[in-house]
Amino acid sequence: MIINGVTIDETFAEAFSMKATRIIITAHNSKWAMISAQAMTGMATSVIGCGCEAGIERTLTPFETPDGRPGVSVMIFATGRKALAKQLENRVGQCVLTSPTSAVYAGIDGGVALPLGKNLRYFGDGYQMSKQIGGKRYWRIPVMDGEFLAEESTGMKEAIGGGNFLILAESQPQALAACDAAIEVMERVRNVILPFPGGVVGSGSKVGSKYKALGASTNDAFCPTLKGKTNTELGPEIESVMEIVIDGLTEEDISQAMRMGIEAVCNLGTGNGVRRITAGNYGGKLGPYHFHLREIMS
Amino acid sequence: MIINGVTIDETFAEAFSMKATRIIITAHNSKWAMISAQAMTGMATSVIGCGCEAGIERTLTPFETPDGRPGVSVMIFATGRKALAKQLENRVGQCVLTSPTSAVYAGIDGGVALPLGKNLRYFGDGYQMSKQIGGKRYWRIPVMDGEFLAEESTGMKEAIGGGNFLILAESQPQALAACDAAIEVMERVRNVILPFPGGVVGSGSKVGSKYKALGASTNDAFCPTLKGKTNTELGPEIESVMEIVIDGLTEEDISQAMRMGIEAVCNLGTGNGVRRITAGNYGGKLGPYHFHLREIMS
Amino acid sequence: MIINGVTIDETFAEAFSMKATRIIITAHNSKWAMISAQAMTGMATSVIGCGCEAGIERTLTPFETPDGRPGVSVMIFATGRKALAKQLENRVGQCVLTSPTSAVYAGIDGGVALPLGKNLRYFGDGYQMSKQIGGKRYWRIPVMDGEFLAEESTGMKEAIGGGNFLILAESQPQALAACDAAIEVMERVRNVILPFPGGVVGSGSKVGSKYKALGASTNDAFCPTLKGKTNTELGPEIESVMEIVIDGLTEEDISQAMRMGIEAVCNLGTGNGVRRITAGNYGGKLGPYHFHLREIMS
Amino acid sequence: MIINGVTIDETFAEAFSMKATRIIITAHNSKWAMISAQAMTGMATSVIGCGCEAGIERTLTPFETPDGRPGVSVMIFATGRKALAKQLENRVGQCVLTSPTSAVYAGIDGGVALPLGKNLRYFGDGYQMSKQIGGKRYWRIPVMDGEFLAEESTGMKEAIGGGNFLILAESQPQALAACDAAIEVMERVRNVILPFPGGVVGSGSKVGSKYKALGASTNDAFCPTLKGKTNTELGPEIESVMEIVIDGLTEEDISQAMRMGIEAVCNLGTGNGVRRITAGNYGGKLGPYHFHLREIMS
Repeated sequence: MIINGVTIDETFAEAFSMKATRIIITAHNSKWAMISAQAMTGMATSVIGCGCEAGIERTLTPFETPDGRPGVSVMIFATGRKALAKQLENRVGQCVLTSPTSAVYAGIDGGVALPLGKNLRYFGDGYQMSKQIGGKRYWRIPVMDGEFLAEESTGMKEAIGGGNFLILAESQPQALAACDAAIEVMERVRNVILPFPGGVVGSGSKVGSKYKALGASTNDAFCPTLKGKTNTELGPEIESVMEIVIDGLTEEDISQAMRMGIEAVCNLGTGNGVRRITAGNYGGKLGPYHFHLREIMS
Repeated sequence: MIINGVTIDETFAEAFSMKATRIIITAHNSKWAMISAQAMTGMATSVIGCGCEAGIERTLTPFETPDGRPGVSVMIFATGRKALAKQLENRVGQCVLTSPTSAVYAGIDGGVALPLGKNLRYFGDGYQMSKQIGGKRYWRIPVMDGEFLAEESTGMKEAIGGGNFLILAESQPQALAACDAAIEVMERVRNVILPFPGGVVGSGSKVGSKYKALGASTNDAFCPTLKGKTNTELGPEIESVMEIVIDGLTEEDISQAMRMGIEAVCNLGTGNGVRRITAGNYGGKLGPYHFHLREIMS
Repeated sequence: MIINGVTIDETFAEAFSMKATRIIITAHNSKWAMISAQAMTGMATSVIGCGCEAGIERTLTPFETPDGRPGVSVMIFATGRKALAKQLENRVGQCVLTSPTSAVYAGIDGGVALPLGKNLRYFGDGYQMSKQIGGKRYWRIPVMDGEFLAEESTGMKEAIGGGNFLILAESQPQALAACDAAIEVMERVRNVILPFPGGVVGSGSKVGSKYKALGASTNDAFCPTLKGKTNTELGPEIESVMEIVIDGLTEEDISQAMRMGIEAVCNLGTGNGVRRITAGNYGGKLGPYHFHLREIMS
Repeated sequence: MIINGVTIDETFAEAFSMKATRIIITAHNSKWAMISAQAMTGMATSVIGCGCEAGIERTLTPFETPDGRPGVSVMIFATGRKALAKQLENRVGQCVLTSPTSAVYAGIDGGVALPLGKNLRYFGDGYQMSKQIGGKRYWRIPVMDGEFLAEESTGMKEAIGGGNFLILAESQPQALAACDAAIEVMERVRNVILPFPGGVVGSGSKVGSKYKALGASTNDAFCPTLKGKTNTELGPEIESVMEIVIDGLTEEDISQAMRMGIEAVCNLGTGNGVRRITAGNYGGKLGPYHFHLREIMS
């Protein structure tokens, strides 16, 4: 399959089961809601090194938030409920509770409840108060800048991590420009986040290493500088490979993000230097979700 | 002391000894250098909850970086060398090595060496190579997007954490606007970072809590909604208090940042609603560094 | 009528008939499409001083533009067809044709045709070529960075200029913060632009002046510093007044923008300092469109 | 001369005498100062089509402005004093006076005086007041949002317009990326502006046209799509050409901007696709200022 001169490999992205939650951060204005969300989702690129994968889903107008203020929707993914609950509490406590004028609300109703205000309230040192509105419980925690409002809990859902595709280009600037184009449209897809910095991975990894202590190492088969030293997957025309990783709530969400991103790359026009799109998998042995590129693009 | 109608309390900010390091992140363009720096310094508001305090010091032009590319200077503060080294390695590994087109260099020469490329190199799975330029050692690690260049190590310095001042205003929007003005100038001071989200803390804490498990709780004496319920420090005119926290290399650095920030607040002009500036301390019992507001401002 | 403590005056905004057009600017990426659109819509706050009123309607994803690239939708309003055609041609020629990687398309189909490529093509010095796709005509003009593609023409519609409302607040920072909140939601309304800088007017005018040569002068009845010197409309609690002006295609478009903006202001929460919303009119003598605030908000 | 593989042509940029002025716009915060400056410098890419060339020189901290508020420094260039004075007055009146919380000050002391407050004051309808501070005269004009402060006048200087260089690359995305890199450093040079959208021209022109009514037309010798149809200046490897134009106060200012921009382009690293740098001139017949590329770069 070739789209506008870009070869789409006959392969699939292999993804894994995760648990996900979503919260809504609001603030006095959109700038400060975004600042809090960026702080909270920092250092959250991979579950292995960071304990969770987190990202900004989208910005919310005042008409879309529980308190009529500008907001940001944030999603967090982890391997299990306990890890997710711990990361959620710690990140909200460090980066949302502390952020000026902030409040935090559930972004998923129902499902297993993960504590928000339920645990954060103790910061109020006994001065906190609960209120019930429309069947939901909120905590009003007195803070220096006024009052921090936190919904009792948010919901957890089954989710999927590790959707991905790889962009193979003739040069590094061209691979980067292609990623810019893909990210720009993928950011608009709901129910997904792109956990890596700016959505892109420049240093994809393979499982295992010659050093026993390390579980992962550079994906040498896709390293352009190693074409002569390893069993390369790259043709002579490829000088740079970048990967976009997607976590999402459902297979449909991840498929849509992949399709829109790949479409954007294939539509870049002349001189874009993109030659091939492929995806990362483990031969189907590890993850139950298989996103076949050619199915997605047809 | 009153500056343009703003009362400057006769008190001091009490600060603590920390260890600090600085790295330089470069990338193909400034946008991607900043994306990597933001990811790496996320979730790093306080040493207690995050293991370190990190922030962006400033952006660097191509003429200021080792490789002639746009860059960002990042600083990390921790309580000791081991914690700092661990945070540095993990954060660079997760958020800089992974970021497309990135490279990482020492931002402090000399002092105790903290590993950068020295440890990251193993990601290269044996394909990494070292090179020596001008007496410095670098590691060239093959990655998918080309090559990740990392200097062998960066330096560690004695530093200071917890410089601070509090802005007391008639309303929350006015306190926030005052913080906006202070942050805008404080961001330009070198050798300092403002570790909290956007530089501002809306929920300052006191040591201790009525709940034994908690070491800190809301600073009730400065909570406007608790004026009638606690031994308040606030007059009737104050409805919002926000704190700006500064970590820096030296007392001079922190003093300068405090002076510039307070000056910006005091120069806001009519209708700004700021009534008083104070600072947080523990009576001088805990931290060796005392920043007296009136000395700083005279 | 009082909404969350804000008085909504029983009055109306008086607006005028105008002619409007819309174009779509695309570029290699969204940054450069926006740069071109900002340049082109600069110096276009009022028809009297600038010849037209222009603004950015919204950004467009690659899936929403004729050429599958990121884009920006721009609207221009003038008092008549000739003036509009001249402004369109000059502004596109100076700020879109010159902008790197740009292309320009019709944003309104049908109606009276205003030339785009039809006139710009002569820049091609005879090397330009036309092509017909799907019943539409385009011009391919050779330029240094490749080829500038311009649709033959765009459509003109009857439209309305001068929708407005005024925010009366206790202080200037609070009036500004209220405008920030209003603009943030009003920017999302389709078919409208806010022609003044950032959408806001700090210096509203009345018709006439004591200086014969001037047709307009400061709206003294709404100037806080003139309460004692003129027949003021302001109570003692008002220290700053800001106006938001809206041009749109239909009465419904302007009404919706006004409603969303006023709603955002009234929902700002405690300490916002907004006391009253009113609107500008000429007693109904001049403009055929009357936007009654209380009807809009009920 | 070849720098990092990029050929620097033995040629020169030919530039012209202009008149220039500078103003300082301040506002309540940096966001609004920038909004006003962007509006005021819009639609100002070339003197022929726009009456002047204008641009943002740099942002100013509160410590660099006359009123201790954040600011932006704006420069305007025109062919003569009258044209410059008219553009200045009209643009400040439409885009700065109207902008909320704004004020305007001289950015050049001495020289021929161009009116600022001197003429704008009449908007005050007789309520305006002058004040003298430190030998300078200011006008306080009552406006709805408070008071518009305008210095009596600003200075005019002899200046130079039309400094330039051209980037010749293998593809359009690569030419654009090279411009991004050049602009990023050139924006930091003082006393210069880059009048075209984002600093870049994608459609450079030659003097004259086959159509008598037009004084300029596409620079066909540098159009990649016309290689076979015209007396081309381009080798087969060049597929896109972009130009950066610089206006500045002195020859030194323009030389420095050119040098920094060209240096940034030549330092882009592998895969950047830039092959050649040249400059635009008219054989030395028209403009008195000649910027020889090889002198500048040696």
